[in-house]
Amino acid sequence: MTEHVMDPAAIDQFVADHFPAAHGFATTVSAEHGKVRIRLAEPGEMHLRPGNTVSGPTLMTLADTAAYYNILSLIGPVALTVTTSLHIDFFRKPELGKIEAESRMLKLGKRLAVTSVDLLADDVLVARASVTYSIPPPEKRGVR
Amino acid sequence: MTEHVMDPAAIDQFVADHFPAAHGFATTVSAEHGKVRIRLAEPGEMHLRPGNTVSGPTLMTLADTAAYYNILSLIGPVALTVTTSLHIDFFRKPELGKIEAESRMLKLGKRLAVTSVDLLADDVLVARASVTYSIPPPEKRGVR
Amino acid sequence: MTEHVMDPAAIDQFVADHFPAAHGFATTVSAEHGKVRIRLAEPGEMHLRPGNTVSGPTLMTLADTAAYYNILSLIGPVALTVTTSLHIDFFRKPELGKIEAESRMLKLGKRLAVTSVDLLADDVLVARASVTYSIPPPEKRGVR
Amino acid sequence: MTEHVMDPAAIDQFVADHFPAAHGFATTVSAEHGKVRIRLAEPGEMHLRPGNTVSGPTLMTLADTAAYYNILSLIGPVALTVTTSLHIDFFRKPELGKIEAESRMLKLGKRLAVTSVDLLADDVLVARASVTYSIPPPEKRGVR
Repeated sequence: MTEHVMDPAAIDQFVADHFPAAHGFATTVSAEHGKVRIRLAEPGEMHLRPGNTVSGPTLMTLADTAAYYNILSLIGPVALTVTTSLHIDFFRKPELGKIEAESRMLKLGKRLAVTSVDLLADDVLVARASVTYSIPPPEKRGVR
Repeated sequence: MTEHVMDPAAIDQFVADHFPAAHGFATTVSAEHGKVRIRLAEPGEMHLRPGNTVSGPTLMTLADTAAYYNILSLIGPVALTVTTSLHIDFFRKPELGKIEAESRMLKLGKRLAVTSVDLLADDVLVARASVTYSIPPPEKRGVR
Repeated sequence: MTEHVMDPAAIDQFVADHFPAAHGFATTVSAEHGKVRIRLAEPGEMHLRPGNTVSGPTLMTLADTAAYYNILSLIGPVALTVTTSLHIDFFRKPELGKIEAESRMLKLGKRLAVTSVDLLADDVLVARASVTYSIPPPEKRGVR
Repeated sequence: MTEHVMDPAAIDQFVADHFPAAHGFATTVSAEHGKVRIRLAEPGEMHLRPGNTVSGPTLMTLADTAAYYNILSLIGPVALTVTTSLHIDFFRKPELGKIEAESRMLKLGKRLAVTSVDLLADDVLVARASVTYSIPPPEKRGVR
């Protein structure tokens, strides 16, 4: 389960090629031992909410993205995986800084992948998510 | 619980004034009987994922926003409410069209508000979320 | 999706035959229009927590059971479906009385079923759950 | 946050005295470093589902119990804390054996406590839960 077939550069290139809306949002920091860590690429005002803390949607998007990249890195370039559910608990309101998400693969089945994602602001845990993806059968795994 | 103290125009104006990152993302369609319905303002490529369906983060953000607007409409302009948890299940992949979220207030306590949010694509249920917000004590309810 | 192939009596008989631990916990009240309603069979001290209100595990178990019975009623006697995730929000602490769960099928796919479950105490909504089940492929649907 | 004011024996005694329905269900194995581990006390047929694997409700109840014991051990004997939400993902179907839950405190605020709970069957991770409890204000913390 922990052999990564795509490295950070390959993940980012695949996303740039096939998922324009996500391109520029996050960059991959590492992919090893079943974990993928990504970072909010250009923290800015668009990611803030009143009180000048990072918004919930920014953290949720980062969690979903980290889970997706983790699956990509483990099963290869399968664009059509799709989130089936996401749960997130927020603990602390983070200020804008180094915002990262580290996804850990908990189950990688034939049809479902479940990941746990830690959201970190300057290395402090600020939220945790559980993200489940559905993996298409082999004949439907085209990149478009 | 179902008396709305802010109408759709007042909600949208408050958000434009105090939450620039959310401004332009969604507009409020209705706020009555404990329910608030909002609509994705300008559906575009940024909301798509591979396969040309609306992305999970777009729907999660819309769910979180609908819950926030619902609380606003019921307790008045309190900017500093904050999401404590969000759960979402995705049922169908929606194409880009009329994308709406309807939030229903299930519990409005002194400190916690729980809402159920239906995500609709051209009036078809495509996802459902449960969103919990923490409401600050009265002395901390400033808009900034 | 809303054609029920097992009625309340058939559901209860199937559970009595194949799921002894659940037998006696709940009885089926109705199964129609995609909804299944069940009732805590013998409310008693074992279902209470400090403060003499119905315990969270009792409500969670009822939610999971209602979802299972709903799937049974729609796809027939397939014992080996299995819960893949459950989310529940509690709104009010219910006293011991008529405790019911009404499950509504939101998605019934080939491999996943998603239901929303309302938990009711004397007809008042006290909690809401989302329960996802995995449905085995046809060749593995034996009752034992 | 990690100073435990009740040890395993004190937790089990408190539960025996104040929470008869939970008495006998689980015993506390350890309480240290912000983590509390408990064990299903008497695994038996009542905890099984078709296929002879441990039932979802047994695991959910164990998760909720581990979270409750963790809070108890950290804030002392406050019976009236109450679950506000629980989310659980199931990965593997465990056979009946040593069934344990280890709760880790992620946030212990004045009013909300959030824990992550690993469910283990013979030391293998079979499910993971996130459990949130509401903590009553000091004047309402009586044990009955």
